[in-house]
Amino acid sequence: MADQVYEATCTAPVNIAVVKYWGKRDTTLILPTNSSLSVTLSQDDLRSLTSARCITAAGQGSGEDRLWLNGHEEEINPDGRTHRCLAELRHLRKALESRDASLPKLTAYPLHIASENNFPTAAGLASSASGLAALIATISQLYSLTPQNGISISDLSRIARQGSGSACRSMFGGYVAWEMGQKEDGSDSVAVEVAPASHWPDLHALILVVSDKKKGTPSTAGMQRTVATSDLLQHRIDKVVPARMQRISQAILDRDFDQFAVETMADSNQFHAVCLDTQPPIFYLNDVSRAVIQLVTELNRASVDDAGRGYVAAYTYDAGPNAVLYIREPDVDRVLRLVEHYFPQSASSSSAIPTDIPAGFNAQVIPQHPLGSVARIIHTKVGDGPRVLESAQHGLLDPQSGLPKSVVASAA
Amino acid sequence: MADQVYEATCTAPVNIAVVKYWGKRDTTLILPTNSSLSVTLSQDDLRSLTSARCITAAGQGSGEDRLWLNGHEEEINPDGRTHRCLAELRHLRKALESRDASLPKLTAYPLHIASENNFPTAAGLASSASGLAALIATISQLYSLTPQNGISISDLSRIARQGSGSACRSMFGGYVAWEMGQKEDGSDSVAVEVAPASHWPDLHALILVVSDKKKGTPSTAGMQRTVATSDLLQHRIDKVVPARMQRISQAILDRDFDQFAVETMADSNQFHAVCLDTQPPIFYLNDVSRAVIQLVTELNRASVDDAGRGYVAAYTYDAGPNAVLYIREPDVDRVLRLVEHYFPQSASSSSAIPTDIPAGFNAQVIPQHPLGSVARIIHTKVGDGPRVLESAQHGLLDPQSGLPKSVVASAA
Repeated sequence: MADQVYEATCTAPVNIAVVKYWGKRDTTLILPTNSSLSVTLSQDDLRSLTSARCITAAGQGSGEDRLWLNGHEEEINPDGRTHRCLAELRHLRKALESRDASLPKLTAYPLHIASENNFPTAAGLASSASGLAALIATISQLYSLTPQNGISISDLSRIARQGSGSACRSMFGGYVAWEMGQKEDGSDSVAVEVAPASHWPDLHALILVVSDKKKGTPSTAGMQRTVATSDLLQHRIDKVVPARMQRISQAILDRDFDQFAVETMADSNQFHAVCLDTQPPIFYLNDVSRAVIQLVTELNRASVDDAGRGYVAAYTYDAGPNAVLYIREPDVDRVLRLVEHYFPQSASSSSAIPTDIPAGFNAQVIPQHPLGSVARIIHTKVGDGPRVLESAQHGLLDPQSGLPKSVVASAA
Repeated sequence: MADQVYEATCTAPVNIAVVKYWGKRDTTLILPTNSSLSVTLSQDDLRSLTSARCITAAGQGSGEDRLWLNGHEEEINPDGRTHRCLAELRHLRKALESRDASLPKLTAYPLHIASENNFPTAAGLASSASGLAALIATISQLYSLTPQNGISISDLSRIARQGSGSACRSMFGGYVAWEMGQKEDGSDSVAVEVAPASHWPDLHALILVVSDKKKGTPSTAGMQRTVATSDLLQHRIDKVVPARMQRISQAILDRDFDQFAVETMADSNQFHAVCLDTQPPIFYLNDVSRAVIQLVTELNRASVDDAGRGYVAAYTYDAGPNAVLYIREPDVDRVLRLVEHYFPQSASSSSAIPTDIPAGFNAQVIPQHPLGSVARIIHTKVGDGPRVLESAQHGLLDPQSGLPKSVVASAA
């Protein structure tokens, strides 16, 4: 008789913040200095896929947990964040097993975990959020850590947060707040759903991948330098973000794109402002990022009426030069054509400005840029939370060996 | 018998702020939202030269005040700032004439004023400060508005301020504070000398003229947009600048370059941060500006000891991409060579990094830039205040006609 196989496979999405997380008040527990809010992007386009299996056969594996990311085995540091997440998940499973003796004792087995992203690291998209969320989703599925068993998605987000702060927001679909919480143990620093994707499904995103030769300041180091040296950050934390969280949540509930756009752009600008107010200063925006901002600003200026209605696009930038533009579905095509005019995607791109620009739009606002200034444009939309897949069909681990189906040989 | 000639000629200097002026609380009187502090640069290198003459002969002139800037006649708008400055100066002269009946009644005569800068507008240096200061210095000389007659330089700075805010700081040499003042009529919003140039004479400046294709946001419009929309500006005004004014004044009195450099760079960064926190955001720094910041940051990092001593250069940026580097005289040559390595000034520039860089300096911090990225480097130093020149030798007005010696024909 074949052994029972304990394996789960899930995907988790990328999220892009519209109220930015920048600064930790506790670097071990990953407790933020302010709440943040994000839009979850569709896993049809961008996702991390993870399989996890309990290694039950004595001959398989080393008796230790093992992890492969994009085919490369990664060491699980016993003092590291992945190890802490696994320990928390085992702790929850252990409690279930104690309550119900009929459950298999999965906590006794080592885990093999394999994870892959469907987007290249070179795309400049933070993969840690979707990757950590997929890890938590997969193992919680494997361990039956579900609402039926008294464990909410917010409970799981608390664990994801300790792996990679903004990963907690990728545990939900749609529009997601990470409430900073007040408690020292971090128990109230969790993600909550503001609204599901279905509440406001026509929000699309264009990701403009901007080339940058130089490596930017890593966000983990950068945010703590801002905490230590910026005179303006505390004002943002105390006075600006709490009110903005309320306004943007309301804008989402009202499907009010104008208010959503205004707050999103202001928060992106302020995040990069506090980076500049850091000593020495941190720059994530380059001249191409700046040109995209000018283009969107001019498009909105020519579109918005005296009552402040009619925004077409909202830009936001994380810790890098890539732009993410939020746009409602009916406007996507014309914004895309406008972007492709100024940032050509092929040598045969038309040099004529699109004809459906708003009256009064100043076509000279920025020059046409050389091919490659924006290396790639990814079109996606708001999407749902982590998905459970069939391991038999989608799993990354070989049923016989318990090792990844595709392993990239690492240098000795 | 020849008529008595009433004419004066003066020069006035450029100043570069180390605590930035950004925001007016009264746009008519030009009252700032915060105090600021600047270094006056030497008129041996950069200056505005102005001649002013009372037109006493009935046949000369139109009976109206007339003004020529760089050979072009400019209209004096009766509601404009130049007109207001002239009215204030006449008002002071009138009081002198009332007190002393033996004085010639100069206020009865129209004025011809000609002014020239010795630096091209294309250099991207704000010429309004030196130009307005030269105007005020020249007419106050013509009108005998002097300390002997009870009119201090700070009194004159109050008039210059109403012409162009930061012009008030160009009325003094050396190290100059513009005290924001509290009164509604602006009577206490004046420039004061923190220390003369002779107190700390070895402070040099390198002005790196950075090409920028696009025209930036004019500072007059930009600063009021920041006042209207930045959530961070008020915190800067209330909490940051007052303490910085004290620290940087003390640093100047102590000739403490380390403290001076730290405060100067932090204030420049914060000024550009509040520009970015403006809606829509204002960008003055471009990729070349950013590279200069990174170069200076690395040079200082490799030079500063654990006690925070050993800064070599301090960058500051006004409302444009040009860098101004403050450097002590003994360090100028090696900083200049380093800058010229990364931003070549001629096709024959050496590609070898200078040998006198500090140990541990990371030569890869920025790439060598193409020729022309920094179009020009101006080397100057701290200097004195407005100078009085002999009109006979240096005057810009023709003795016979009372018109500028060189006039550029304007388009009809």
